[in-house]
Amino acid sequence: MKKVSPRTLSGFMELLPDDQLVMNELLERLQRSYELFGFSPLDTPIIEAAEVLLAKAGGETEKQIYTMQKGESELALRFDLTVPLAKFVAANYGALSFPFRRYQIGKVYRGERAQRGRFREFYQADVDIIGDGELGLIYEAEIAAVIYKTITSLGLDEFKIKLNNRKILNGFFEYIGERENSLFILQTIDKLDKIGLKAVINILSDKGIKRESIDETLKFLGVSGSNSEILEKLEQYKDKTETLSTGIEELKEVIESLKDFLVPEDKVLIDLSIARGLDYYTGTVYETFLDKHPEIGSICSGGRYDNLAEFYSKKSLPGVGVSIGVTRLFYVLDEQGLLNKDCFSSADVLIIPLVEDLKGPIGIASKLRGRGIKTELYTEKRKLKAKLSYADKIRVPFVILLGEDEISSNKLTLKDMKSGEQRGVSLEEATELILKRKAQTADIRLIAEKKEEE
Amino acid sequence: MKKVSPRTLSGFMELLPDDQLVMNELLERLQRSYELFGFSPLDTPIIEAAEVLLAKAGGETEKQIYTMQKGESELALRFDLTVPLAKFVAANYGALSFPFRRYQIGKVYRGERAQRGRFREFYQADVDIIGDGELGLIYEAEIAAVIYKTITSLGLDEFKIKLNNRKILNGFFEYIGERENSLFILQTIDKLDKIGLKAVINILSDKGIKRESIDETLKFLGVSGSNSEILEKLEQYKDKTETLSTGIEELKEVIESLKDFLVPEDKVLIDLSIARGLDYYTGTVYETFLDKHPEIGSICSGGRYDNLAEFYSKKSLPGVGVSIGVTRLFYVLDEQGLLNKDCFSSADVLIIPLVEDLKGPIGIASKLRGRGIKTELYTEKRKLKAKLSYADKIRVPFVILLGEDEISSNKLTLKDMKSGEQRGVSLEEATELILKRKAQTADIRLIAEKKEEE
Repeated sequence: MKKVSPRTLSGFMELLPDDQLVMNELLERLQRSYELFGFSPLDTPIIEAAEVLLAKAGGETEKQIYTMQKGESELALRFDLTVPLAKFVAANYGALSFPFRRYQIGKVYRGERAQRGRFREFYQADVDIIGDGELGLIYEAEIAAVIYKTITSLGLDEFKIKLNNRKILNGFFEYIGERENSLFILQTIDKLDKIGLKAVINILSDKGIKRESIDETLKFLGVSGSNSEILEKLEQYKDKTETLSTGIEELKEVIESLKDFLVPEDKVLIDLSIARGLDYYTGTVYETFLDKHPEIGSICSGGRYDNLAEFYSKKSLPGVGVSIGVTRLFYVLDEQGLLNKDCFSSADVLIIPLVEDLKGPIGIASKLRGRGIKTELYTEKRKLKAKLSYADKIRVPFVILLGEDEISSNKLTLKDMKSGEQRGVSLEEATELILKRKAQTADIRLIAEKKEEE
Repeated sequence: MKKVSPRTLSGFMELLPDDQLVMNELLERLQRSYELFGFSPLDTPIIEAAEVLLAKAGGETEKQIYTMQKGESELALRFDLTVPLAKFVAANYGALSFPFRRYQIGKVYRGERAQRGRFREFYQADVDIIGDGELGLIYEAEIAAVIYKTITSLGLDEFKIKLNNRKILNGFFEYIGERENSLFILQTIDKLDKIGLKAVINILSDKGIKRESIDETLKFLGVSGSNSEILEKLEQYKDKTETLSTGIEELKEVIESLKDFLVPEDKVLIDLSIARGLDYYTGTVYETFLDKHPEIGSICSGGRYDNLAEFYSKKSLPGVGVSIGVTRLFYVLDEQGLLNKDCFSSADVLIIPLVEDLKGPIGIASKLRGRGIKTELYTEKRKLKAKLSYADKIRVPFVILLGEDEISSNKLTLKDMKSGEQRGVSLEEATELILKRKAQTADIRLIAEKKEEE
């Protein structure tokens, strides 16, 4: 028979079982964290009618979308989870309770040019709160708390949530009369470290921006210090425009609320340069960076917006939410050796029978499973050494050895694969030891932060 | 702005939050059950190269496949989880430990004619054990145990796992010299109840099948009784052909092993008419039926096969596995009102502040979340009645009411939404009560079997 080469498309992540276990743990921790805040799950189709999915798209995104024809229908694969959310809320408005709190974790598709670390199929983990006509500022603080709790649940300690408020940026650029050039100015100033002050000024001047506006912007974006210092320095801008004033008030209130949400003050930084796309966001915006790995970029971003579903509905549906690009996060952490892979196994215990008759071993496996212990029974006819090497390979924390002696004396030999220690115990004792170790897994740091040598 | 109608394609299931919670619970219980047996997760791409995915396909399936062109590549969406598994094992043979035990729960795509209860995007939940060159009979018993444990974990009690062995069927048709017509004969006899004996005999005679072969087949398929009675009656066929003899021995051994796997005898029925496609399966085959709802069809099916990856690899990779069509199962159970929907909520508790200052309520919410309690904070400015009606709508089991009195006395009012009972308790007492109720959810029957009136 002619064989087809069993290849997987480039740009599509397909993990070996050991890595998939870690990826699953990552996805499950995100889900559990979102659920802690009372968000409901949503699971929209991966395929949508092209006209629905492309209602808003355009430019770069549209070129990347996977489309296909089936019968007479033009179809497309979702490229994010926000457009399907907008469609869902618009279509089911009457059946939903507002504020509508949903999370969705699923694959999205973008036909980007294949390159290392770029994926065409990747998981996004989104969480959003949608209001009906209005949505209180408290939710903008709550979403920062969601970020804090979620990133912490992965075992990360050394990260910062950077906050800004789009009304501050918009208001400031209104004030200097450069509202229309604001994106261009921000993008140019973002290159300051790379190209130097002189080049920045030249580029902006060429665009026709007055020198004093440039200076004013540099001064404004240069406002730094602790959060309270920044808020204090912003006071001087408060009466400049109404938008600016509202933005500063909102930022102050969000920062204040975060204490009640038990978010440590040192985890949140005001950063006036964060914009996240110019038109969509209208209030608080969020980015999240690892202290020691800024090169990874923001691992959790989003913000407040005023119109979720303007392409589908006349209703005003303001919302706030963030998104995590899970596949890329996993890839980068893995590449840098930051994933704690050794702690996760498909089984809590592997039973290795040393007898022909499998009655006893099967019975013990069934009892352990009845106690919620992930139990694998290894019945291949191989030497003990090969069997233990299989146990090593699947990283199982315990092995149960069952020979004639064990079965006749109603005991079993429990081998701790980490310490190598081996002892004769009753089934009940073994169960307790395995359950104890299993309970610890929930607290294992999924991500190992490299501590600097002190 | 011109609005696009926010529609979802027909044949694609998109659930409202309450239903999605139940679907998620269903998917999670399947996953936990598969994991109990030490299976590793696998997550292959939804898009594959068309030539890879279609290596085996043909006929009806091929027509239903979603294909698309992206750049120069011909792509296709997976239509099951078996072909991607075959590709994966063939491609990663050297990196896997055998027997390779994997589960995969994911969406697959078939462009079937849209009709009620038929889905074009649906979840399959597959579990397979793949051997390297050989695979012991014990795994065929273990998969039946996986079915039992999995279906039971959904809360079902009244079901039967029907077993057969393809070697018995193959051996029997060899013996009567009708190996080539075996599928046709089985399909025709399957219509016996519908069209009557005379019509069956006519159809088979027209095909050129001898009357004595027809009688012999009817007698063979009519073998009935308890499992041990059937096995005893099969003894008379044992020396007819070697295949038949092996099949009978295997079936006996699998049935015998199931006792050790703690599968109750009354849950397993030998059914000699089960074939499940003629060529792929080579040993034990499984189907699973609800006692009171046979019209749903088999909810979990599969079998033993000898060549997982013959289109990709020269290696002999025998395996055994089963699949659950989750989306259809959910749909049918829901339609028949058999899903226990009321017991699942996106939150374990809803906090309703009756004060302006949210400091206290936010603090309590954060503490509850710290204890693993799914907590939603309802801060909308509405009347208490409207707030409690929101609580009803999201089916939350507890509400915490926080007024001036509660906050100043360091107590809170906990309302049990089921009983309506309301009492003043400390935060610690409330935590314990909520955690206790939460722990019970794990044991809730997801599926409510309608008991007959006795």
